[in-house]
Amino acid sequence: MSYSPFISELIKKLDAKEGDTLSVRNGEREYVGTLMPHHEFSLEDIIILKLSNGYNIGIRISESSSVTLISKGAAKEKKPRPEQHSSGKTVSVLGTGGTIASYVDYRTGAVHPALSAGDLVAAVPEIKDICDVKAEVLFSIFSENMNVENWQTIAEEAADRINAGAEGCIIPHGTDTMGYTSAALAFMLGDLPKPVVLVGAQRSSDRPSSDAYTNLVSAARFIVNTDASEVFVLMHASSSDSSAAVHRGTKVRKMHTSRRDAFKSVNSPVVATVDFEGGIDFHADYRKKSSSKVCAQTEMETNVALLQYFPGMSPSVFSRILHESSGVVISGTGLGHVSSDMAEEIKSAVQGGTSVVMTSQCLYGRTNLNVYNTGRDLISAGVIPGEDMLPETAYVKLMWVLAQTSDADKISEMMRTNLRGEISDRRDISE
Amino acid sequence: MSYSPFISELIKKLDAKEGDTLSVRNGEREYVGTLMPHHEFSLEDIIILKLSNGYNIGIRISESSSVTLISKGAAKEKKPRPEQHSSGKTVSVLGTGGTIASYVDYRTGAVHPALSAGDLVAAVPEIKDICDVKAEVLFSIFSENMNVENWQTIAEEAADRINAGAEGCIIPHGTDTMGYTSAALAFMLGDLPKPVVLVGAQRSSDRPSSDAYTNLVSAARFIVNTDASEVFVLMHASSSDSSAAVHRGTKVRKMHTSRRDAFKSVNSPVVATVDFEGGIDFHADYRKKSSSKVCAQTEMETNVALLQYFPGMSPSVFSRILHESSGVVISGTGLGHVSSDMAEEIKSAVQGGTSVVMTSQCLYGRTNLNVYNTGRDLISAGVIPGEDMLPETAYVKLMWVLAQTSDADKISEMMRTNLRGEISDRRDISE
Repeated sequence: MSYSPFISELIKKLDAKEGDTLSVRNGEREYVGTLMPHHEFSLEDIIILKLSNGYNIGIRISESSSVTLISKGAAKEKKPRPEQHSSGKTVSVLGTGGTIASYVDYRTGAVHPALSAGDLVAAVPEIKDICDVKAEVLFSIFSENMNVENWQTIAEEAADRINAGAEGCIIPHGTDTMGYTSAALAFMLGDLPKPVVLVGAQRSSDRPSSDAYTNLVSAARFIVNTDASEVFVLMHASSSDSSAAVHRGTKVRKMHTSRRDAFKSVNSPVVATVDFEGGIDFHADYRKKSSSKVCAQTEMETNVALLQYFPGMSPSVFSRILHESSGVVISGTGLGHVSSDMAEEIKSAVQGGTSVVMTSQCLYGRTNLNVYNTGRDLISAGVIPGEDMLPETAYVKLMWVLAQTSDADKISEMMRTNLRGEISDRRDISE
Repeated sequence: MSYSPFISELIKKLDAKEGDTLSVRNGEREYVGTLMPHHEFSLEDIIILKLSNGYNIGIRISESSSVTLISKGAAKEKKPRPEQHSSGKTVSVLGTGGTIASYVDYRTGAVHPALSAGDLVAAVPEIKDICDVKAEVLFSIFSENMNVENWQTIAEEAADRINAGAEGCIIPHGTDTMGYTSAALAFMLGDLPKPVVLVGAQRSSDRPSSDAYTNLVSAARFIVNTDASEVFVLMHASSSDSSAAVHRGTKVRKMHTSRRDAFKSVNSPVVATVDFEGGIDFHADYRKKSSSKVCAQTEMETNVALLQYFPGMSPSVFSRILHESSGVVISGTGLGHVSSDMAEEIKSAVQGGTSVVMTSQCLYGRTNLNVYNTGRDLISAGVIPGEDMLPETAYVKLMWVLAQTSDADKISEMMRTNLRGEISDRRDISE
């Protein structure tokens, strides 16, 4: 989208070019920075300035805005950053794409996925005060296109960097399927001696309220300053810009299409919060760092499906998927129910060799198939109760478990055993 | 489950029989009531007393409990209920089954579905102080077995009672699929002149913290004392026993497997809260009562499926469902995305005549297919954006819309138009 006629006229009048330094005053707020290119996804009434702290900011221009040209070319003076000593530890940043990756291509401001390793580091100057960064780009795709091979690549590369001495890995990732990827990495990287932290961004670079930089910097601080060593997702903790939440990779779900605090820990507390100004607080137990090596177990059975039960779901329509898949995760209603006719179809599929795991579309709470007859029937038939696992995590886990063993009892046992924090302790059922 | 050996011994020692009056003291709390039968779903350390106010209560018995026999046979004195004048209005109660229906079969305490119209009224004496109740049982099934024909029956019977002069209908319903049924009734009962309120219970009769009675009584109060006339779901507002939330039938979802406040309004405020001790507060606009008649439009296209997208979803596995269904609702990732290969399959299905609606598995927030190329491609191919509709509501709506018209443009227009509060106003996209 191009500029509005009003902004086009204004820029022409100022004779401002990209790279020139502008001042924009909106009411009491003044921004001084370098004019960045306006890209196709920017709103027409927004101009993008690169501030002296390295951030890009999108500023809405109205007729009451005051815009002046400060100098041709970049601003001479750079506000000094607060002094901080790098830990000397090396953090590996493995780019995969998504809004956060495109975001940090600050030279163009474009939100299509395109970045180099150098850009990624250069875009977040603070991170170099925290640690040495080794940034690489594994691939650059929207996360809705993330597939099993991508998960495997990330797991192998992360294991490699950690075994080579990195203090941890940051995985910038599109937010759409970040919860699936974090669960996959958690199962693939079992004996993780150093943390793997997925970070994303819900706001692209032409929005004043971007979350990309703070999430990246918080991930680096979390890796360097704590002894936690699991696969985590780190995203804004609230819609305000004050802290990030560190979620366990198997317990986290994107619960909002657009909010910065879209990610929620489900059936589990947030593991830690990282205050943007200060400390890091833990709210749950976690696995500690060690000096051992990690061996990525990346094999996955891909013939697995995730199906949500709904009233009117027809056994004949879903029969083939149930019978021809190696594994199926159902998100049933309530405690883990389906209609009687679907229950018959599922039982028949289980008898035919399909591993079926029952979770709940409620998302919150625990399944319990022992309350009603139909549930008990499913258990008798061999349906595996998913405890309080997210349907998405159960799906990823089933893919991984089916690649480890083909023994039905062993599959059931592994699915019902807490391997990576994906199953919470059973709470008092009276609650 | 039978009593624990400790309770069995205690009851034997007291020579207490079902129907005798007992006192149970746990610490400072004392309960006096009639001993009820212990049923198969009761916990072994619980005894059930019918209190003088008509409620059944389950009391946990430990070695520190003091249990005494007050009298053989039922207690003589009945605590008088607070005086209240019935409004003289008639509320129709149409039982459909579920925990709430079985619950009110107070004579046996059983949680399997079994009740008569008389039981339903007798079990909630307070309701007769609020209105005249005409209670009937339409059927008695667990809600996971609720199907389209059941929705049609409920809609027709509710319309009939309202047209015959009822001030409103209360539909006791199993909680598992209550949100689907409420959405179906909302679409079927368009010009509703009196409210239809679905109520359920998350706690069976052997739990001290039952919610069935309070939900039923609150529904009666809401119908009689307000001028709101939509299809609503009324359930506990919090885990404490203080108020009920009245949710719009198209915006509500069961979000917890077991909590009493499992139901949440998604992308919409709760319409009203009913304080158990006092007033009724509204938090949103609502449709008003009128004196017109309602005509139930119950036709539904049943060849519709609801599919959640997941990474690794195979176009070939889901091709048949996409192509052979009349309509499919996808719960995509984030703003409404699927992988490129699934997008191709969906486009091909749309070209073949399948109506496809895109919603988000995030549940919260609004879909937006205009941000990325793949989304714009889907829109161009004719995929219908689901706005901020719940996937479950979009599924029910699509069944209903496909029964109204077979014209693709009209289907798309109806799906994108807010008919029953199922689509919220677009908020500021900067938020």
